[in-house]
Amino acid sequence: MSAYEIPKTQWAAVKTTRTSIERVVMKLIDVPRPKASQILLKITYTGLCGSDKSFLCDDWEAFGINMSPETEGIAGHEGVGVVVAVGEDMKGRWNIGDRAGVKWIASVCGKCDFCQDGEEVHCLNQTNSGFTAPGTFQRYCVADGQCTTKIPDTITDQEAAPILCGGVTAYAACKKSGVRPGGWIVIPGAGGGLGHLAVQYAHAMGMRVIAVDTGERKRQLCLDLGADAFIDFATTEDTVGEVKKLTKHGAHGVLVIASSKEAFTTAPKFLRPKGTVVVIGLPVDTSVVMGVPPGQMTQMELRVVGSFAAIKKEVEEAFDLSIRGLPIVSEGELEELDSWIDKLQGGQVAGRVVLRVAN
Amino acid sequence: MSAYEIPKTQWAAVKTTRTSIERVVMKLIDVPRPKASQILLKITYTGLCGSDKSFLCDDWEAFGINMSPETEGIAGHEGVGVVVAVGEDMKGRWNIGDRAGVKWIASVCGKCDFCQDGEEVHCLNQTNSGFTAPGTFQRYCVADGQCTTKIPDTITDQEAAPILCGGVTAYAACKKSGVRPGGWIVIPGAGGGLGHLAVQYAHAMGMRVIAVDTGERKRQLCLDLGADAFIDFATTEDTVGEVKKLTKHGAHGVLVIASSKEAFTTAPKFLRPKGTVVVIGLPVDTSVVMGVPPGQMTQMELRVVGSFAAIKKEVEEAFDLSIRGLPIVSEGELEELDSWIDKLQGGQVAGRVVLRVAN
Amino acid sequence: MSAYEIPKTQWAAVKTTRTSIERVVMKLIDVPRPKASQILLKITYTGLCGSDKSFLCDDWEAFGINMSPETEGIAGHEGVGVVVAVGEDMKGRWNIGDRAGVKWIASVCGKCDFCQDGEEVHCLNQTNSGFTAPGTFQRYCVADGQCTTKIPDTITDQEAAPILCGGVTAYAACKKSGVRPGGWIVIPGAGGGLGHLAVQYAHAMGMRVIAVDTGERKRQLCLDLGADAFIDFATTEDTVGEVKKLTKHGAHGVLVIASSKEAFTTAPKFLRPKGTVVVIGLPVDTSVVMGVPPGQMTQMELRVVGSFAAIKKEVEEAFDLSIRGLPIVSEGELEELDSWIDKLQGGQVAGRVVLRVAN
Amino acid sequence: MSAYEIPKTQWAAVKTTRTSIERVVMKLIDVPRPKASQILLKITYTGLCGSDKSFLCDDWEAFGINMSPETEGIAGHEGVGVVVAVGEDMKGRWNIGDRAGVKWIASVCGKCDFCQDGEEVHCLNQTNSGFTAPGTFQRYCVADGQCTTKIPDTITDQEAAPILCGGVTAYAACKKSGVRPGGWIVIPGAGGGLGHLAVQYAHAMGMRVIAVDTGERKRQLCLDLGADAFIDFATTEDTVGEVKKLTKHGAHGVLVIASSKEAFTTAPKFLRPKGTVVVIGLPVDTSVVMGVPPGQMTQMELRVVGSFAAIKKEVEEAFDLSIRGLPIVSEGELEELDSWIDKLQGGQVAGRVVLRVAN
Repeated sequence: MSAYEIPKTQWAAVKTTRTSIERVVMKLIDVPRPKASQILLKITYTGLCGSDKSFLCDDWEAFGINMSPETEGIAGHEGVGVVVAVGEDMKGRWNIGDRAGVKWIASVCGKCDFCQDGEEVHCLNQTNSGFTAPGTFQRYCVADGQCTTKIPDTITDQEAAPILCGGVTAYAACKKSGVRPGGWIVIPGAGGGLGHLAVQYAHAMGMRVIAVDTGERKRQLCLDLGADAFIDFATTEDTVGEVKKLTKHGAHGVLVIASSKEAFTTAPKFLRPKGTVVVIGLPVDTSVVMGVPPGQMTQMELRVVGSFAAIKKEVEEAFDLSIRGLPIVSEGELEELDSWIDKLQGGQVAGRVVLRVAN
Repeated sequence: MSAYEIPKTQWAAVKTTRTSIERVVMKLIDVPRPKASQILLKITYTGLCGSDKSFLCDDWEAFGINMSPETEGIAGHEGVGVVVAVGEDMKGRWNIGDRAGVKWIASVCGKCDFCQDGEEVHCLNQTNSGFTAPGTFQRYCVADGQCTTKIPDTITDQEAAPILCGGVTAYAACKKSGVRPGGWIVIPGAGGGLGHLAVQYAHAMGMRVIAVDTGERKRQLCLDLGADAFIDFATTEDTVGEVKKLTKHGAHGVLVIASSKEAFTTAPKFLRPKGTVVVIGLPVDTSVVMGVPPGQMTQMELRVVGSFAAIKKEVEEAFDLSIRGLPIVSEGELEELDSWIDKLQGGQVAGRVVLRVAN
Repeated sequence: MSAYEIPKTQWAAVKTTRTSIERVVMKLIDVPRPKASQILLKITYTGLCGSDKSFLCDDWEAFGINMSPETEGIAGHEGVGVVVAVGEDMKGRWNIGDRAGVKWIASVCGKCDFCQDGEEVHCLNQTNSGFTAPGTFQRYCVADGQCTTKIPDTITDQEAAPILCGGVTAYAACKKSGVRPGGWIVIPGAGGGLGHLAVQYAHAMGMRVIAVDTGERKRQLCLDLGADAFIDFATTEDTVGEVKKLTKHGAHGVLVIASSKEAFTTAPKFLRPKGTVVVIGLPVDTSVVMGVPPGQMTQMELRVVGSFAAIKKEVEEAFDLSIRGLPIVSEGELEELDSWIDKLQGGQVAGRVVLRVAN
Repeated sequence: MSAYEIPKTQWAAVKTTRTSIERVVMKLIDVPRPKASQILLKITYTGLCGSDKSFLCDDWEAFGINMSPETEGIAGHEGVGVVVAVGEDMKGRWNIGDRAGVKWIASVCGKCDFCQDGEEVHCLNQTNSGFTAPGTFQRYCVADGQCTTKIPDTITDQEAAPILCGGVTAYAACKKSGVRPGGWIVIPGAGGGLGHLAVQYAHAMGMRVIAVDTGERKRQLCLDLGADAFIDFATTEDTVGEVKKLTKHGAHGVLVIASSKEAFTTAPKFLRPKGTVVVIGLPVDTSVVMGVPPGQMTQMELRVVGSFAAIKKEVEEAFDLSIRGLPIVSEGELEELDSWIDKLQGGQVAGRVVLRVAN
């Protein structure tokens, strides 16, 4: 018998139809029941990722990327909660009362060639929280028992939430950069939601960080989080020149977090020979290409790598490291989701948004 | 006293001025004397690389890339010969009568940060054979003793010559692809001068090779050299589909050897998630960009890497491997250089061109 | 309804009690029924691995390593067969009539930290064919649907069987050696069951192979399979000196396949600075240690790595590569198992033993 | 003309003959003149490494390892100073007044196969400071211009000195451990001269550090320098069990810095599957072997690697990282060298010893 009383119905933040001025409204829906391979979580906190905003605002329609009907209009993929029910096959792996995290990959088939090879991120039959499966913008959420992550005791729910997507994305990008401890990494947009996490992970891995952003508040934030230098792009005439001055021959790596055309064009220019561009940003503009002239590519022996990480192992690695530096969060309530989308769109948020869901 | 009589003058194939219909003419010039750090080689064979053709035809003027006056109009960077004189500092490393190879990197400074780090290919003060230093299209050639490679006994001069640039370029590209033994690599232009070397190196490293080219002769050549499959692009409607059929989820790597716009655009399409594009080709058209849409780059976690290899260590590695498969060469005489440039431009050459220089 | 008629009982080769002179006898036992997560295979061929012999002869009792009661006395972990029944959960992954392979790892829990990290070989709750679960020395064998490997069309059942353990072990050891294409690898015991597979894999990966063994027949076998040199240890006074002569500064890697004390002591002596010893052999003598003097270890910066591979991904990789070179097999019948154990113990077997089970 | 007046004679700490009770005495000797490839340094500070002590105390005679006559009895290989004269060939690389560091590798030939391959640490013709060439226990020291390292502005002379051997050794060992950021590394002897540097480097690279040593002072030092846990081996019954408790399945890596027999035996026991032992310590006892039972080696897939780093590139990398954490030094005068050897032998030194040489 469970120590938790599970209600029949719950409130969820549900995507509206296009005619509405709000993007989401609170609706009373049924509490789902976990299958044998699933657990039921009472969500305490959920992050609000940039891609949730894009899904709820139909930003990527031009690419044919939209939330599927299976989501029931519920986005969200950075959810932390407590296990309140455990499906038959998940006994042994999960106990009532455990703290668990829900991330982008909601489930994988375990049978396709990619699953068999340990490449779950490329599973041909995966479902994704808030994209092809109901997400974490609800009080009770079912989650696949295998794809869910245990939350270490050393970290609170509201700190853990943004690590489940933003944190692991930043971590994996730093790892893919291949920049050695002591090497230089450039992070344009370093003061933003994803950027400030990347600054911390890069610093924790021993890299020397050049944070690029604008304004005194972001300068202070980046330096506090471990950046070795800050370049204010608004007051600096030649950002590339400034990076070269600091690094002599250019940086060893650069993260493309932003999604503007210029971010993609400038990135390779920061680099020394054998340097690496890590592509993370997803532009709304379909004409944007991550491109480098072949002559520059070969003579400098540059590398360009795409990073798209949400595998369980890397989430755990991100938690292992995050002990030393925690996400800066702006905290709100699930009921305020619509207004937080406005703030995110307006660039008014410091760090990552985390919403309280249930208590 | 040397066992070799060294003449005062020699014949060299020298670049003409623009008003001439020929690209090169044979001229009688002085035989150079080696400095303390140099050796003097009597060149027996020299390869004719695509880039020699481009230099002599002023193909890359739009990029501001031209042979410098220091070359004295002598191109060529795949030269094999016998050591006929040894500078003071090179005694111990070289003996009269040794067989030696001259490659793209003619000399490095040894003092800059890149040399200090073992990245001689990015030496800030390097000279290059046939580009900023006299090349191998002459009977006697001075060469830096440190940058010159010993030729193993198991390989003849005419076989060794094309390995010094074409071979090591192919080898390094295969290595940079990161394709594991048993993995699939696609090589468009597989029947060409660089391509047929790449087929052999990829095969020798255990990769499964999909050769893409056209015509029965090239098909047979590729299969003989170890390709596992051949796709004739002229008679195949959907080359990408064909690759997917052979590899199920796409190839693990693709080499961009050709320099057409289409080669760069198509390459990423051959790949499975986590696949690698290796960029080697240098297009004449300045508008060509090696570009991938960010969404594809991230979701498939693709890698794009530039390869530009001519370091001594990799040349030696290329020789170690080349024992099992040798370059196909079309053999001529240095005196016929101009007509071989025509043939190369017309795509009429099977394998690599090698010219006999002295005997 | 299955296209295959499944009998109620079958013959199996079952381990005897210690008082018997035979190690196995044929017994009539029930045909097992697959659980939801399992498939039932009709075994056509099974390899006889050295460790099967050791289990059946109680070789490793001193280490406390014995077949568990769950095996019902049935050893064998290199089995190939046809799928004749599919458990409920394995529909989609397996069809009646598919060809499948059973290997050392019979099942994994999927829930422990190692499984979660893709390190199934270290699963804390794994079962092993012929060690803690019934093996392949029977006509019908149940097998976990996730841990079983599809057999490619290009390879026959009797060729596939020895790859499932011997082949993948050899492949993984070559991979772990880190020897680059063109680098030198020494394989003592190259003409044996595991050794001759290692020669082929090393060769297919582009390594230069020095085979060490004795006798004209093994010399010829090794050279035929791609070895670059053969050293007959019985007629060579100084094997280490011979290796140094061939490689100048020593080899890049060495595989310790044999399990004699001397094999472990000699291995590091073959190496050049930064060389790698790969440990695979399992000595019966408990006093044997893989040891290197610390001074040699540090000054030469040697690496010693243990290899114990049976993960599904590497089995697939081994199949991908094995297309070019197939195992040499001595073929018998399951009924003759006891006499083949004698032959194996007497060192009279060329290549790997494969036994026909059902037809 | 130099800005520095160079005297004809100088004081040096010179090794005595065996009959003396002191190991070194101060002697007046000639100031050496740099060759074309050398620079002359006025040494400001020199570290006193454990191996200097061993050389001066003839600790390694049983291995046939003694200071050669070329050293003129002058040990020392962690020297920092100012350039006071520059040989002809080193102009361009060095200027009068530059700060430079002298390390273990005093010179390399540049011509042997290892130098050609960028493996200068294995140069067949190298000389070593204080072992086969005069070391840094003198006021003026000639040094090869290529093998000497520039000291960054951000670090003082006395801080830089111990990094030139102790620091880079610790750094390279951490790197060779392959422990990922967030992974666990065990450092027995963490409070010692080499150990406390390893704690800092491992921490700076993002590893979680388990320091093993004894006493409250060392506990505090290790935790201050970034250790995540401290185990006092004198008061802990089961150190291995304690490590397992902290890490669940064992650590990812362990450094063997100490040279006792027990240090080598215990190290592998701290590890989880796929863990790495890095061997650095050099025991005086010739019977000590770095050994692991083959069964443990293979089933756990352990790695044992020797580390012996002093290459210029890694020295620079060590300086890049050391900006965040500096060596703890006990400072003395060159004239007191003999008494510092006593203290080192008695284990009475906190951190690394640094001696002031000239001012």
